[in-house]
Amino acid sequence: METKKNEKIEKVEHKCTLKDVLDIVGGKWSIPIIYTLSEGTMRFKELERAVHNINTRMLVKELKSLEANRIISRKAYATVPPTVEYTLTLKGEKLRPIIDDLHKWGEEYVDL
Amino acid sequence: METKKNEKIEKVEHKCTLKDVLDIVGGKWSIPIIYTLSEGTMRFKELERAVHNINTRMLVKELKSLEANRIISRKAYATVPPTVEYTLTLKGEKLRPIIDDLHKWGEEYVDL
Repeated sequence: METKKNEKIEKVEHKCTLKDVLDIVGGKWSIPIIYTLSEGTMRFKELERAVHNINTRMLVKELKSLEANRIISRKAYATVPPTVEYTLTLKGEKLRPIIDDLHKWGEEYVDL
Repeated sequence: METKKNEKIEKVEHKCTLKDVLDIVGGKWSIPIIYTLSEGTMRFKELERAVHNINTRMLVKELKSLEANRIISRKAYATVPPTVEYTLTLKGEKLRPIIDDLHKWGEEYVDL
């Protein structure tokens, strides 16, 4: 009985982690922003241009969430006007190979 | 000049595919449903119970989209009441390793 119980707990725990992950990177704009920043540090306006069809409000909201989850870091410079740069953290960079795999899946199977 | 131009086109094409992929699997419930079906064929009610917090309307909508994109296949049986089973297609199954990698990322980095 014991192993059956552990299996169930382990399974529930395993499932939760996927939900936690999707709460962090499952948003409509999360992966496009992470993918774009995996090419290098960017300022807000650069990001806004690079991520197709995102609007300012959505980008502000998504960047806040990604920063809170430590996927990106934010650096402000006291220039006039102030400049802010966004960079992937190590945690964020580790997502790039998974996004690349998603990409390869798309190139191979999207028309299947 | 020629390689530069190809590089640019290749890059744009590369980027589009990510967008196409996210249009297919980027929905809030897509990955949880694909992950759940990767454990085997399921009926609607089983799926509804297995995918935490999803409601009937969302499940109907998401299953229609996944079927239209040939990620899942749908089989109806003329029982009374009729029974419908959902199964991952080959295309859908190929997403499982990527979801597992997302899972591993979560287990390793979610608290970083």
